[in-house]
Amino acid sequence: MRIDILTLFPALFDGPFSESILRRAQEGGYVEIHTHDIREFSTDKHKRVDDYQFGGGAGMVMAIQPIADAIEHLKSQRDYDHIIYMTPDGLTLNQRMANTLSLAGNLLILCGHYKGIDQRIRDHYITDEISIGDYVLTGGELAACVVVDAVVRLLPGVLSDEESALTDTFQDNLLSAPIYTRPAEYNGWRVPDILLSGHEANIEAWREQQAFERTQRLRPDLLKGSTDFPVNKNK
Amino acid sequence: MRIDILTLFPALFDGPFSESILRRAQEGGYVEIHTHDIREFSTDKHKRVDDYQFGGGAGMVMAIQPIADAIEHLKSQRDYDHIIYMTPDGLTLNQRMANTLSLAGNLLILCGHYKGIDQRIRDHYITDEISIGDYVLTGGELAACVVVDAVVRLLPGVLSDEESALTDTFQDNLLSAPIYTRPAEYNGWRVPDILLSGHEANIEAWREQQAFERTQRLRPDLLKGSTDFPVNKNK
Repeated sequence: MRIDILTLFPALFDGPFSESILRRAQEGGYVEIHTHDIREFSTDKHKRVDDYQFGGGAGMVMAIQPIADAIEHLKSQRDYDHIIYMTPDGLTLNQRMANTLSLAGNLLILCGHYKGIDQRIRDHYITDEISIGDYVLTGGELAACVVVDAVVRLLPGVLSDEESALTDTFQDNLLSAPIYTRPAEYNGWRVPDILLSGHEANIEAWREQQAFERTQRLRPDLLKGSTDFPVNKNK
Repeated sequence: MRIDILTLFPALFDGPFSESILRRAQEGGYVEIHTHDIREFSTDKHKRVDDYQFGGGAGMVMAIQPIADAIEHLKSQRDYDHIIYMTPDGLTLNQRMANTLSLAGNLLILCGHYKGIDQRIRDHYITDEISIGDYVLTGGELAACVVVDAVVRLLPGVLSDEESALTDTFQDNLLSAPIYTRPAEYNGWRVPDILLSGHEANIEAWREQQAFERTQRLRPDLLKGSTDFPVNKNK
């Protein structure tokens, strides 16, 4: 997979893309990530990239020319499966969407900043508008990091068996069961006896029950419409 | 405001906290952000911080001792309004929650990694479990960045009038109206005439209508339960 990111703040990605699994995924050749500074595409003599909005109002708008030229430049080099704009009014990212995006060959992600981008970019270039949640961020950069992280860890080979994504929260529309590690007692707080019992089948049943109860209590919405939970399993 | 972050990957925060508004907010004294490496609190001679989970299963678990000691250390120095654990099964972040958190004096944010943390930390230390959305990330670090960004930009003085958060998407349960900047025509694509009309009242009415229609089409859920849209305004 190749991911190109258009941004006014390429340095923001240094930390997130240089640590842990994202670093390993790049070193292992599973993904190539390229950040491009939108400012370099500005034909303005002062390299301006924003301007006041038509009709008045607070907040600067990212102008059409630098972004359009940057997208045209990248599109002339390869085809993109998705040209994504990160915006709070986009479709909200979920695990299913991450799974879908992980099947793509080339992704182009545009990060907005300030009050947003000229609407004509959205109308004529963007294929997917994605939000990571119902809150407003300084810019699209952190949102792009989140999409990249959620997607890249799903690429075959990136996670080891030990880290397998298959038991993750959301992959089966259930929250995870509680987990514990040594020591069995700390500060008077004990691990549930069942986990120390060594009885695999009982442990498995306990975990399913815990996951289901936790989901029912904290996120009943996840259970609605889910066909993944084995309701016919007679237990 | 002071924010302390407990993580196994402090370097991941270098980019996000050193650019744009988060940098300015720290330079201006509006927020102090400190990252702490959990590994430094490990009493293990190899500085181990994770272990296999009780009851078997794939994935390593962050052990209780280094995290407990790190939290105790920080709590001995100041009181925290919220001790937050970033986890996909937490309460989903929204703009209202960001507004609430922005009123706090001291925040402590714990980032999980691997399969998660020992449940006893959650039971005995954590006051708030927060998720940034229904997807799984490599770790809690990017999620913590998102919370910090969403909260810090709301601190009084951080944004200039030009950047005012009051007209943001979600602050009134409506998506934003489309925005445009110069040139009025680009590549044959024209800005809507009304925005060039100079008629302030008409522009305002157009924007409200656009925001409402866009919300109704893309995010009807935002309109339910909202008392903010002026339905009685007789238009």
